[in-house]
This record gives sequence, structure tokens and C-alpha cells, in this order.
Amino acid sequence: MKLVTFDDGLVGRLDGDTVIELDVPSTRVFFERDGQVAETGRTYPLADVRLRAPIVPKKFFHTAGNFREHHEDLVRVDWSHPVNKGIVFFQNVDAIIGHDEPIVYPANLTREMDYELELAVVIGKPGKFFTAEQAAEHIGGYLVFNDITARDIQRKEMESGVFSFSKAIDTFCPIGPYIVTADEIDDPHDLDMELRVNGDVRQKSNTSRMSVSIPQLVAYHSPQTYSAGDIITTGTIAGVAASTEDPFANYLKPGDVVEAEIEHLGVLRNRVVSWQDAYGTPEPPAEQWV
Amino acid sequence: MKLVTFDDGLVGRLDGDTVIELDVPSTRVFFERDGQVAETGRTYPLADVRLRAPIVPKKFFHTAGNFREHHEDLVRVDWSHPVNKGIVFFQNVDAIIGHDEPIVYPANLTREMDYELELAVVIGKPGKFFTAEQAAEHIGGYLVFNDITARDIQRKEMESGVFSFSKAIDTFCPIGPYIVTADEIDDPHDLDMELRVNGDVRQKSNTSRMSVSIPQLVAYHSPQTYSAGDIITTGTIAGVAASTEDPFANYLKPGDVVEAEIEHLGVLRNRVVSWQDAYGTPEPPAEQWV
Repeated sequence: MKLVTFDDGLVGRLDGDTVIELDVPSTRVFFERDGQVAETGRTYPLADVRLRAPIVPKKFFHTAGNFREHHEDLVRVDWSHPVNKGIVFFQNVDAIIGHDEPIVYPANLTREMDYELELAVVIGKPGKFFTAEQAAEHIGGYLVFNDITARDIQRKEMESGVFSFSKAIDTFCPIGPYIVTADEIDDPHDLDMELRVNGDVRQKSNTSRMSVSIPQLVAYHSPQTYSAGDIITTGTIAGVAASTEDPFANYLKPGDVVEAEIEHLGVLRNRVVSWQDAYGTPEPPAEQWV
Repeated sequence: MKLVTFDDGLVGRLDGDTVIELDVPSTRVFFERDGQVAETGRTYPLADVRLRAPIVPKKFFHTAGNFREHHEDLVRVDWSHPVNKGIVFFQNVDAIIGHDEPIVYPANLTREMDYELELAVVIGKPGKFFTAEQAAEHIGGYLVFNDITARDIQRKEMESGVFSFSKAIDTFCPIGPYIVTADEIDDPHDLDMELRVNGDVRQKSNTSRMSVSIPQLVAYHSPQTYSAGDIITTGTIAGVAASTEDPFANYLKPGDVVEAEIEHLGVLRNRVVSWQDAYGTPEPPAEQWV
């Protein structure tokens, strides 16, 4: 099932170009009810609805260091301290946006906006302290995540050993376009991944290159407790702008269109827009003390 | 007003030893309604109710590095890399517990459980991208937070430049006993702080020793967007077990009782209990790959 949130928060499933409305107040509740949800009888042409972020989870576990190709990229350009496999921090659930919603460029905060394509896992059944063997029953679905990152802020944060603010700014968390339930994905460790900026391929890999499997990752973090609908991400692949020969030629700028695609999970497309264009007012100054 | 959550999620305000029930489904909604909430007419003796965590916010901003005395403590024992003032990461909202609820000791994960007393701020009015001058109108109240931390896990995490899992384990986030609304606190930068373990004073300071003021801190993180009821913490003070001469004599163990107190905000008391005593079953093995 391809699960969508649309218009003012309605929930549906996609059937080709038709949205079939489901009788449930949110996709989180869909997972809380273990997918036991009726249809309302209403349907809509996909072209007539506005897709929203497919879910706003209670918690968004953001892991890193899984694809060693990304880490080797960053080490090569002398960017990063060592990153162990599958480390975690939490992403900001108020920064989430959906397909075709704008990423707002906060020019007073960053001039180094980067992209990071990731596979995200949705937790279906809640739980804690479980093993990798038990993890499959807790996985409810998969979706595309584009981890927008302000590298200049991240560089400053990493002096102190965190990276959170740089990825948590308003609108920096595009996910979507929909959630594909786990029963439709034969092998989540064999999905092609590709990210394009204005049509140019920037990142290209396959989920087979993870060094920690999805069940291991999900189990490892389970002492932090999962609620139904929680998201856990699996790390990005080679090719982020910061790792290229000329990062400033490749960082995102207002007007750019980013397409993040994973096989069977669809294309998540977002345009970068200036603060002025997004809100119609000048961007406020940034508060600084350091 | 001293705002409490009690029994199965009822909301009330304390008047001496009486709980006056409020007609609102949660303290988050209390702040969403800007405190414009009626009483139900029901009252309860405080001794007859069970206090719960006073709020489970949408987001829990965990800041660090604010009290330089804590940082100097850790540098002195060669514990920490440099930590800038007021850095942020997100705390796990599913790890929250309230006054008198048990902190469960996961012996298969950690043998270095530490305490950290912090002042936490509750956001009343939502907002983003605002200045320190505008911050006061966004602050809804204050409460006590005890940042339980697994130092052995943190040490491993800090190799990669994060500290999240070590503080996000189930039950590691005691807050309470209540929220004191901002109108009752004349000067949040002049509150005595003291943490005791089994009656022995371990941490003692005053909020005047913060290096970044609360309005600055709240404004600085506002590009990450605040929802009503969000929590932002302000860093711990000197005296954590890891900074003492004999940390293993001071780390928390099952049976210990921790009292975290801040002037005007009450005493948050929690007992550490073994997994077996908490759940009646042996603790499951921890998933490991590193």
C-alpha cells in the first residue's frame, strides 16, 4: 500500500492515479491500529489533491555512518572526525515538509545548504529492547528522506561533538511522497537510490551498500523505545555537495529543484526558495553569541 | 500557577495540598490555549493523586555547555572535547517520566549511570526566528529536569561527535514534579539548584551562573521552530559523578534515590530500580555490532 496524507490532513492510499480515502485521522493512527482501517468510499484524482508530509512521527531517529562510501567521501575532503556505524540523534519533527513543499533558504543562517538522500523506515508496531531477529515485525513501511544540512553550521557544531541544529532548521526535513508499507518491499537491502539537482545526478547508490542491516539498526536503537509511526533513517550515500571538488558550485540555492528517488518508493521533489519569496517579508537577523 | 498532570492524564493546578482539576485534555493544550482554561469544579487532596510527568512535549530541546563550571569539571578529568555554549540536540520524548516514577537501570547497556540537574523552560507561545528581546513572550513556565546519562555509552558516542543514545534510554528523562508558570518566577536567573543522592548533596549552584541567558538561548534556537509546550533545557552544573575523584563510587545504582531541586520549582524525586524489579523479567541482551 502507498499511504498518503493530503489536503488538510486526510489519509488515503494510492491506486494508480487515484487517491482512495481511508477512515483514520492520521497515518500515525493507521500504524497504531496496525493498518486495520476502513475506506470512506470517497476517491480523488491524484492530480486534484495536494500531498502533504506522509507522516509526522512522535520521534524521528536520525542515524548516520551506515554507508561507509559517504564517510570516506567526507574524510577524503578532511571534513569529518571519525563516525561510527549507525550513530543516532533525533531530527526535528517540526521541520518536516512533504513532496512539492518549499525548502526555505535562511540566508542569515547558512550559505552552505547541502542535500543527503536517505532511506527512512517507519515503525509499525511499538516496542523496546528487542533483538534483530524480532525487528521485522516492528517495521511498518519505508519512504524517501532528504536530509537538508547547513554545512557551515554543522562545521561549528561538530567542534562540540553534535550535529543537530544544522539539520533541524525549519523546512529542512522533506519526506515523501508517500509511505510504502513493508509488505510491498521484497528486499529493502536492494533498492537503487539517486538524487538529482536540476536534473543532474549528484548521488547514486544502492541500499545493499549499508554496513549495518535495517533489522540490526532498528533493534540496536530499541532501548530508546519506539512508538507506532516513529521514523528511523539509515544514513546517506556518496556524493553530497560538501564532498565535491567545488562545494560552493554544488550547494543548493534558491531556485534549485531537488529530486530524491529510491526504487519502489517514488520521487520526492522540493524547490529551494528564498525567505522573501516564501514569506513575503525580509528574513529576520540571526541571534548570535559565539 | 503550579501545573500538574495526574492519575490517568488529568490536568490540574496545585493550591497548597489540594489539586484543582482543570478542564483541558493535557498541559500541552493548556499552553496552546494560552492558559485560558476553566476549572472542572473537582478537587483532590494531593496525597490521594498520583503525579505524572507534567508534560510530554512535541519537542524537547536539550542544550549543553551553558554552565562553564560543569564543562571545566569535565575538562579537568580529561572527559570531554571542547563544548561551545548552548549547543543543542533533541531529547527522547518517549523516555520522559514524572516525580516518584522509577528510573530503570539497564545493566546490559550501562554501568555508569550519572545524574545532571538542569532548569528546563516550557515554551508557551509558538514561534520561530525571533530575537532575544521577543523571547519573554514565548516562555510559558519552568520545571526541574534530571538528565540521566550513561557515561560509558556517551564516551563511545562522543568518538563520533554525538551524545544522544546515552541520554535517551527508556526512563532516562525525569521531569517535574510540576510546571511553574512564568508569571510566578520573578528572576529565573537567580534560583538555587541542588541535587542529592540518598540525601548527600552532589550538585549545588545557582542559575545566575549560566553564561548564556535564557532569552538568548530560546531565541538562538528559534529557527528550529517552537510548538506550544516544547521544552528547552539550560545545561547542568558542576558535580556530576563522572567529574568526581571516584566516579564508580558515585554513579547511580539500583536502590539509590535522587532528589533534584530548584528554588520555587520543587523537588523531583526518583528511585533507581533494577530491570528485574521494574518489569519482573530478566533484562534482554543488548544488540551490538561495534
